[in-house]
Amino acid sequence: MVEFIDIGDVSAAEIDRLRGVYGPLAESVRQLIDATIRTEVDADTVAAIREQIDGATAALRSRQIDGPFGVRFTTGGERLPWGNPVIGLRNPIAPPLTIEHGDDGTVYADFELGAAYEGPPGHVHGGISALILDHILGEVAANSINPRFTGTITLRYLRPTRLGRLHAEAMTTRSEGIKSYATGYLADDEGVTVEAEGVFIEPKWARG
Amino acid sequence: MVEFIDIGDVSAAEIDRLRGVYGPLAESVRQLIDATIRTEVDADTVAAIREQIDGATAALRSRQIDGPFGVRFTTGGERLPWGNPVIGLRNPIAPPLTIEHGDDGTVYADFELGAAYEGPPGHVHGGISALILDHILGEVAANSINPRFTGTITLRYLRPTRLGRLHAEAMTTRSEGIKSYATGYLADDEGVTVEAEGVFIEPKWARG
Repeated sequence: MVEFIDIGDVSAAEIDRLRGVYGPLAESVRQLIDATIRTEVDADTVAAIREQIDGATAALRSRQIDGPFGVRFTTGGERLPWGNPVIGLRNPIAPPLTIEHGDDGTVYADFELGAAYEGPPGHVHGGISALILDHILGEVAANSINPRFTGTITLRYLRPTRLGRLHAEAMTTRSEGIKSYATGYLADDEGVTVEAEGVFIEPKWARG
Repeated sequence: MVEFIDIGDVSAAEIDRLRGVYGPLAESVRQLIDATIRTEVDADTVAAIREQIDGATAALRSRQIDGPFGVRFTTGGERLPWGNPVIGLRNPIAPPLTIEHGDDGTVYADFELGAAYEGPPGHVHGGISALILDHILGEVAANSINPRFTGTITLRYLRPTRLGRLHAEAMTTRSEGIKSYATGYLADDEGVTVEAEGVFIEPKWARG
């Protein structure tokens, strides 16, 4: 049902080249998203800019894959989750987070959220905090090996999270067969704002 | 701390005009996001397209507000959450959802999610389901009057949610002073995929 795509024996150099082509494109689109929300240019200017954007879209679509990006992996075992809305190098919706692994088994990320992620004025949408925590708890639960899907997750909001520089962190508290229990938090410059805990389950098709 | 912006006595006709200018711009950028994830055009073409996109961004930024969009309201009481990442007319990250109100007090939305929201191949990222459910439960808890912020939310994932046409729905189960309890679900074409329940709290500054 959920199929990963084997792209074969692609060299690390070729992966790096692709990263260098499509990463900056997504970054340009991230800037455009921010400008689209914040612009105050007039109707005629907007109409002219829309034509440029539609032209860019048509050019990109002149050669494109059918359907979504999927999660690709190489024969060497490198995973390329480039379409992911949290960490995806090629997904302009993703901030994107760079997942770091601490010596103590924690997983964490430092990142910035701006206008595109706003719920209450000046603050992060509660659901965006949930998106990020679901992802980072899932990363630590998967432990870099098999994917684990969220079974249950609970989020406790201590106070609103300011837009700007943020830190998210997660750790596994317990593993029992196909289940991993993880906990984590989101923090802004004044400390923890949202706490999360969840159960993550190894999907049937991934079990040895 | 959380400030809503009073934009004064703006007529319904002027709001409609603004909607007609900036809504289609965001829609064009949504198409560009999808194309950015799925394109296979070569490096030279990507470089040329990036220049076009950066040009469009610079033109939009020639007149823009400082900081994020905020949540604006008119003297007439109309709320304009146009920067919101779930329902925002001006936010290309938002699908966007159109919130409908049922006669029985439920709140629901029918919408489509494509490549930009993918987690497991062909399926919705669990955190995106959380984003949408957090928003729709918050909408029903707020009951069209005062905003309510998420206190706690729990999500149970029954199975992966397919990308494509989806339905989300929520209802309030109980209200006690500043707290509202809400429940809801997300469904794909084969039925319910994620269940949610949460407590939503009226922030101090919004209390009579």
